Amino acid sequence: MPAFLSSSALRALRDIYPGDALVTDPAELLVYGADASRGRAQPWAAVLPERPEQVVETLRLAHLERIPVYPRGRGTNRVGACLPLEGGLVIATARLNRILEITPEDFACTVQPGVITAALRDACAARGLLYAPDPASVAYSTIGGNLAQNAGGLRALKYGTTRDWVLGLHAALPGGSILRTGSRCHKDVAGLDLTRLFVGAEGTLGFVLQATLKLIPLPQASASLLAVFAAEDQAPLAAADALASGVLPAALEYLSAEAMEALEHLGDAPWPAGGRSALLFKVDGSPESARADLARLRNALERHSPAFLEQGDTPAQEDRLWNPRRQISQAAFHFGPNKASDDIAVPRGQVANAVARIRNIARSRGLVPVVFGHLGDGNLHVSLMHDASEPDQARHAAQAKQEVLALTIELGGTISGEHGVGVSKLDWLERMRGPEAVSIMRQVKAVFDPHGIMNPGKAY
Amino acid sequence: MPAFLSSSALRALRDIYPGDALVTDPAELLVYGADASRGRAQPWAAVLPERPEQVVETLRLAHLERIPVYPRGRGTNRVGACLPLEGGLVIATARLNRILEITPEDFACTVQPGVITAALRDACAARGLLYAPDPASVAYSTIGGNLAQNAGGLRALKYGTTRDWVLGLHAALPGGSILRTGSRCHKDVAGLDLTRLFVGAEGTLGFVLQATLKLIPLPQASASLLAVFAAEDQAPLAAADALASGVLPAALEYLSAEAMEALEHLGDAPWPAGGRSALLFKVDGSPESARADLARLRNALERHSPAFLEQGDTPAQEDRLWNPRRQISQAAFHFGPNKASDDIAVPRGQVANAVARIRNIARSRGLVPVVFGHLGDGNLHVSLMHDASEPDQARHAAQAKQEVLALTIELGGTISGEHGVGVSKLDWLERMRGPEAVSIMRQVKAVFDPHGIMNPGKAY
Repeated sequence: MPAFLSSSALRALRDIYPGDALVTDPAELLVYGADASRGRAQPWAAVLPERPEQVVETLRLAHLERIPVYPRGRGTNRVGACLPLEGGLVIATARLNRILEITPEDFACTVQPGVITAALRDACAARGLLYAPDPASVAYSTIGGNLAQNAGGLRALKYGTTRDWVLGLHAALPGGSILRTGSRCHKDVAGLDLTRLFVGAEGTLGFVLQATLKLIPLPQASASLLAVFAAEDQAPLAAADALASGVLPAALEYLSAEAMEALEHLGDAPWPAGGRSALLFKVDGSPESARADLARLRNALERHSPAFLEQGDTPAQEDRLWNPRRQISQAAFHFGPNKASDDIAVPRGQVANAVARIRNIARSRGLVPVVFGHLGDGNLHVSLMHDASEPDQARHAAQAKQEVLALTIELGGTISGEHGVGVSKLDWLERMRGPEAVSIMRQVKAVFDPHGIMNPGKAY
Repeated sequence: MPAFLSSSALRALRDIYPGDALVTDPAELLVYGADASRGRAQPWAAVLPERPEQVVETLRLAHLERIPVYPRGRGTNRVGACLPLEGGLVIATARLNRILEITPEDFACTVQPGVITAALRDACAARGLLYAPDPASVAYSTIGGNLAQNAGGLRALKYGTTRDWVLGLHAALPGGSILRTGSRCHKDVAGLDLTRLFVGAEGTLGFVLQATLKLIPLPQASASLLAVFAAEDQAPLAAADALASGVLPAALEYLSAEAMEALEHLGDAPWPAGGRSALLFKVDGSPESARADLARLRNALERHSPAFLEQGDTPAQEDRLWNPRRQISQAAFHFGPNKASDDIAVPRGQVANAVARIRNIARSRGLVPVVFGHLGDGNLHVSLMHDASEPDQARHAAQAKQEVLALTIELGGTISGEHGVGVSKLDWLERMRGPEAVSIMRQVKAVFDPHGIMNPGKAY
């Protein structure tokens, strides 16, 4: 790989990207070198294609000249997946941001990668259709980024992750060819499934030019239920019973004692003091089914004598119940100015065990563990709160984070439930997947990208 | 590739497979050389492993000696996907047939490939859990075969296909290594998704030793609705309105005029004569939601003035409505002793157009088209009925089949909705996917199987 952009490559890029679509000013480039992992790197240049042909030409050039290429949406990922660590060229999707069509009669839409996920969700909802993936970043992350990281979210329990909503892709490959995968059909088994291989590949195979996504009828109603328990291990037990009642909630969230304490300190938690674990359910469907499902969940939960049980079926009531969940990340700073956070998943039956053992790991090092997340999927967000200005606290936090990942693997879980590997967890992938699988991933990448220019050093 | 099994290879296989687990008798081998495509080929030998280690040893040997290997479940596939066309060795899954565990607290189960899908479904149902994929062959096809072909079925509209239910795999690869993919977690984004790459790969990458599958709570109730219309194009229009009512049915089936006529001739169609198209809905969920969803669908359908509308919510009533659907394949022979059948999918909005044009293709050649299938997915089964003993009819049927595939591609559809490519549609894959995509598929296969021993000549 070269160490900078050759003058001929720069000239070629100027031809492809007139005006402000080519960014080379170091100060302007700062924004293309950071992401929500808080990592930072400086690319040699960034480009803002408006047309797919520009991407194709760029990948032809980059392949020839071995220029590292970093696809970039809004940089909301948490694992450094879009950091230009080897310099190179950032290709931003910001101007490839059109919803190309929403076709209710096909239950499908086609979008460019720079479309903000919430914008698509809202445009679909206006047509009576649901695009279900809803990562926490839904209001500012893009479909392209969601595809790269296989974004999950609150509703994955019922509706799956981004991968389950992709019917087909057009992707530019290194060398300048266009790969077309899948179709507009909801069922399609013809050849290897290259579509889903791209989802979650963290931009290492090619650059997604457009995606055809699956839609379903928009549920007409939803309702929510908050249950607070006096014991730490009660919530996972009650959750298991609730799910055994035959209801598949759209979302099932868990709040640990520490998460609740942080929220109480923030001031507007809707529950009385003293709760040590909580569950938050959302059901959706027809008004009749939402009502019936809520009643069924309530029955199951009442057998566990909750200290507090409140339901809501208007938007305002539901918001009141969900607001604390949205504030946990912020509220956690009650326990310390610094956070070492992680995104793991364990088999759902291991959630109570995982939470207890994470608590031990953290407490033994003087850290406060704030654990919360998508209990229905076993997908837990772990924030280890500490004060990095205290002696050894930063080191303890880093070591505890490693112990949490080791525990996760021991419990049959995964080092990433929904954020991906990026660079943050690269050291852990082989430990989890084994050398055989990682070697195969790298060889598969080489089929698409023989010179290794696509987002080098990421994901696997 | 060799043309027969060397004596040293045969000795090695005898060591791995004592007693009747190695089949070499030509008469006994007949059963391992046929599948539901009605194709036929003779393998050199067949083996019946009982332990995963035997498969691993076999793939080490086959890799070294370049022996073609054909994984085989129950041979129910319709596209020749398990025919041993180059001789070689059939590895049958019949004795790898254990359900290893069903774990309600994880919403997961782990099974060997030879488990019959209906047996797994029933074992899960007994624990209050749903394994949803339900290909028509569910009572006699295996999980391994369902994985290889990414089996679909009636309920794919709501629940997706086999791919959507696979969390992780153990697979033996050529050379004798074991690849472990995925996990027991419902969310897992760590590295390339090799799990879903295996699903639908038609046994070309490796031999699946065990699969961990996702489960959800078993719906407590279901209900069905049959609507018959006096016009040929009414059913797809009414279906679009029904889906716009906000209900996502578990199944939505379509019967064309010819399918109805064939069923009427069989004698026990529940509708009065004169219908020209029909829809069959199944909804599931809580009893309240099933009732409410059915009322909503009924309202939407009544705007299209159906000639007949009947609903049922007991098993006996539902069976009465669904029995005709199950009998179409057989009933179609009313129109002729021979059948050229196909499994296509088109974007759902194109179903009415596709049916009309398929009718023209068939009629212009003197064939009777019996079209039916999973309208919700745009997945149509097309049977071109004819009498092959009449002059030119067999040729016309073969040509019409090709025209139907060409039409499918023109409409943005897929040459296979749920049966796969096998050998039957190999000629069509590149026309649909393009040479770039097919070349990539072959290179990806070479990563797993550098000598091309796994099910050679199939799928892509």
